Parts: sequence; C-alpha cells; structure tokens
Amino acid sequence: MRFIGKNRTITHFAADMEPIVHVESGATITVETHDCYGGQIDNESILRPDINLDTMNQATGPIFVKGLGKGDVLQIEIKDIELDPYGVMVTSKGLGVLGEQIKEPTTRILPVNEGQVWFKEGFVFPVRPMIGVIGVAPASGRIHCAVPGEHGGNLDTKDITIGRKVYFPVFQDGGLIALGDLHASMGDGELDGTGVEIGGRTTLTVRTVKGRTLEAPVVETADSFLFLASAKTLDEAIRKGSERVVGHLEQELSLEFQEAYRLLSMLCDVRISQIVNPLVTVRVAVPKELLPRLFMK
Amino acid sequence: MRFIGKNRTITHFAADMEPIVHVESGATITVETHDCYGGQIDNESILRPDINLDTMNQATGPIFVKGLGKGDVLQIEIKDIELDPYGVMVTSKGLGVLGEQIKEPTTRILPVNEGQVWFKEGFVFPVRPMIGVIGVAPASGRIHCAVPGEHGGNLDTKDITIGRKVYFPVFQDGGLIALGDLHASMGDGELDGTGVEIGGRTTLTVRTVKGRTLEAPVVETADSFLFLASAKTLDEAIRKGSERVVGHLEQELSLEFQEAYRLLSMLCDVRISQIVNPLVTVRVAVPKELLPRLFMK
Repeated sequence: MRFIGKNRTITHFAADMEPIVHVESGATITVETHDCYGGQIDNESILRPDINLDTMNQATGPIFVKGLGKGDVLQIEIKDIELDPYGVMVTSKGLGVLGEQIKEPTTRILPVNEGQVWFKEGFVFPVRPMIGVIGVAPASGRIHCAVPGEHGGNLDTKDITIGRKVYFPVFQDGGLIALGDLHASMGDGELDGTGVEIGGRTTLTVRTVKGRTLEAPVVETADSFLFLASAKTLDEAIRKGSERVVGHLEQELSLEFQEAYRLLSMLCDVRISQIVNPLVTVRVAVPKELLPRLFMK
Repeated sequence: MRFIGKNRTITHFAADMEPIVHVESGATITVETHDCYGGQIDNESILRPDINLDTMNQATGPIFVKGLGKGDVLQIEIKDIELDPYGVMVTSKGLGVLGEQIKEPTTRILPVNEGQVWFKEGFVFPVRPMIGVIGVAPASGRIHCAVPGEHGGNLDTKDITIGRKVYFPVFQDGGLIALGDLHASMGDGELDGTGVEIGGRTTLTVRTVKGRTLEAPVVETADSFLFLASAKTLDEAIRKGSERVVGHLEQELSLEFQEAYRLLSMLCDVRISQIVNPLVTVRVAVPKELLPRLFMK
C-alpha cells in the first residue's frame, strides 16, 4: 500500500497543478495530512492572530489517477482515518455565528485518544473523524484550499468519513486529488468556525467511473446520496442543490419536473454542512428508497 | 380519553383567544385536525389558485391546561398520529425554491394507507407522519397559523412526531394549545413549499413543568434536544438558535461562554426545518451525551 507523506502539500487547487504521485485506478493509498493550521499551533499560548493564515487548510497531494480522464467521475472510498494524539480549537473575535461576543482569542489543545476527545473533566465525547478538505483540480484557475466548490475543497461535510464513498466530477486528466483538514469532531454548521482540528492519516481507494458525469461532489452513505452545493448564501446553495437533485431525478428515474420537485419536497432533506467558510456548503440527501444507485441507467 | 373534533378551529394564535375545552395536567386527549387547506382540495381539478388561503393552516383548539400558568413550561408528548386516507400535494407558480420553473399549477391527490404514501407505480414510500402546526397563545397580539415563532405555530419540523416530547414557553394561563397541518411525509426544508398535506387525529398528553422557563419550543428525541428558532432569514434563525443553545448550556452545565460555544461547534448540528413559510425555522440539535436532561438543575 502506497504512503504519501505530509511534506508535499498545496495551498490552492489549481487547474494546472503538477502531481506528486501517479496511482492506478483501484489503488488503495494512505495520505498523511497536517491539521488546518499546518501544525503551527502546538500549545495553548499560540493564538489564532499569531499564525500565518495564508497556508490555512493546506492539502496533501496532488495524486494523479491513471486512466481517469476529463469528464469522467472519480469515486473515492474512505477506508480509514487515523487521528493524531491531540486536536486544536481556537476562538477569536468575529469567528463563527456568535463571534462578536468574543473579547479575547483563546486556544484549547484537546487530547484525542482511545476513541475520545477530552474536552474537560466530565466532558469526554467519542471521536467522529471526518475530512474537511478533499477535492480535485478545478476546470480553470486556482482556488484556495479554504474555499469549497464544484471541485470539492473545504467542504467541511461530516459525512465525508470512514465507510463513505465520495464522487467527484473530473475536470483534468488524472483528477489530481488532494486532501487535508481532518476533524476529530464537528457539528453541522461548524458554528464557532472550527471543528476539533487535527492531523492524521487517511486510507482511501480511488476508482474511475467512465461514461457518466457529475456537476458537483456527491457523498454516498448507507441510506442516502448527498448532493453537495456551495455558494455565497445559504439560500443560493439550497437552490443550487435542489436544482441538481431535481435534474438528476428527472434524468435517472425518467420523471417530469413537477414529479421530481414533489419527491424532493416529500422525501429529501436539505442539510447544512458549514456556514463559516468563504462559501457556505449544504447537502441535499436523497434516500436510496427513492434513488437506489447514483447512476440508474 | 377526551376527543376534540375539527369543527372548532382557529386561524390565528391570539393572546386573548377563548379556550374551547379545559383539561387537567396529565390528561391524554385526541385532537382531530383538517389538512392545511381545511379540506378545500378533495380532487385533482381543484388548484391552489382556486381556494381561499385566508384560513390556511387552521388549527384545532384552543385547549386550556388547568394549573398551567404564565411563565411555566408546557410539555406535550405525542402519543399517536392517525392519518386520513389521502393526502394533497399542490404545486403552483412561485411555490418553493424552484417555483419560478412552474408554468401551470397542478394538484396531486395521493392515497395514504397501510403505512404507505402511493405517489405513483414504483414510487411507494413509508409514511412519516408529523405535525406542521402546534403552539400556544403568544405573549401579545395575534399570529396567523401559517407563521412560526416563539409560541410554536407553523414550525413544520418533522421531528414533531409520534414518541417525541415538545416543550413550549407558556405566555398565557392555561397555555391555550392548538394544532393542525399534519403531513404524511416531508423532507427537511419543505423544498417545493408543501409536504403530503393531510388531516387526521393526534393523541397527546399534556403536562405542566413548574419553576422553569424557556424562550422558544424545544423538541426531545431519543438522543437529542432540538432548540427551535424562527426568523426572516436562515442566517438570523441560526444565530438565534445558537444563542439559545449557548445560553442554555452555560446555565444548565455551569459553563463559560467560550466553553459552551466550542461545544456547540464540536457536537451540535444546526438543521433546517422549513424555508418556505413567512418566517423560516431551524433547529439546533444538542446531543444527550452533552445535555442528558433539558433542565439539569
């Protein structure tokens, strides 16, 4: 099994970025990643205003998948996530939905071991590992790793975790995968602006899906397909996600618009992934009882 | 067990509304309700523009709970929801997130029986009954039943279903409960503007909680407390819900602001209930592993 160390990272997903490694479709690889601060915060005296934010959310990669071509779909199956022994939670003025109530920045270093996050005595919770940043090269230009979009990036979607499959549109030959920004735990919304930020090692299997296309990432869980959408506002992201789902249902299930629209309202949940990045991200969950497979035809 | 028929309804939750019935704290009652259209749509030739919308979301009640005083908390436990044999789904120009794509209004009548909603051949789904409108008299004035708020009302929150408890602030003696607007199925967001709208009979037990207060409704599920918040925009509703949760965690768990704020971000999910009513509604889910009981002290 191939191991890719965290010494090779990107700060932007770029259309023309150079791969650091080539793997076969079907390969299983382990990717080591920094926490979102690049390891700059290793004790509680280091505050958010003290660090360099230009390299925030740096991602390990890019990884070129042989045989994966522009216009294909890339499937990434998350096999395992192994977390470092501690995570970081900063607060800082203006950060998150109640950020104006913060007077002074503070940093907490939280031990993470035995499958638990140790917040303080009496406040110990099971880890819920997830990948914050994961994506492919975009169609054009370069997008900072702190930003989510059709290429993936800083999606901060807690369903991107062990046992799940994530499908990406492929904009450049080889896909050019990069990932980072693990969290030991995070709620939907990422309401104070951060999860339990942590480094670690993710094991994933990459596969090529030929002859099908996608507009934006989709996560497959045990019971649903989650169609992701990112935009400046929640309203716009919800609208985008709804359009993608209705269009997909029309095409894959041979439904008329009004039928697909009713089924969206009756059966599909819109959920918030995060509202604290430069673009917000939502996901529209389509249950498998409606859509048994992502591509039906 | 007391039965309250659907012949006595309100179109507004008013501070000064007159109760139609008085019950003891601890009483179990069955309440019959119209669908949100008051039964005006009973075949597919009747379209949304044809009906009277002034009485939309009318609710059966009000019910006075003896001994329940202004400033107390009311607990309503939903014991059962029995649905009528068909539900209604209209679409109409401008309705829901993709409403501008609708050219002509249409009505669908969907059979609901044997625990299933029959959408069309090959598209049959389990019912997921829920209560759209449930609330108490507000602090002052009158609020149309189509509008959600601190008093409850048109919350359209699918967790308000069989087996759940809902806690309400009490603004007037007796609480003055009314409910209606059942759905046979609805996804989070209610994205096309409607669920499967249906009449039925709800059985509930009402209880008084003395010596505690709430700002807005809270739903108790098996694993979480859901703090509801309604506002003009999603951003504002999320902010309100986050403030309520952080304030509640500070008080009940003796935490400082920054601790409660971190735990909110790390463990609590913000979820969308509906985005199609005059005010939108969200809920912030606090897991019981963090808050084992709503009132800890």
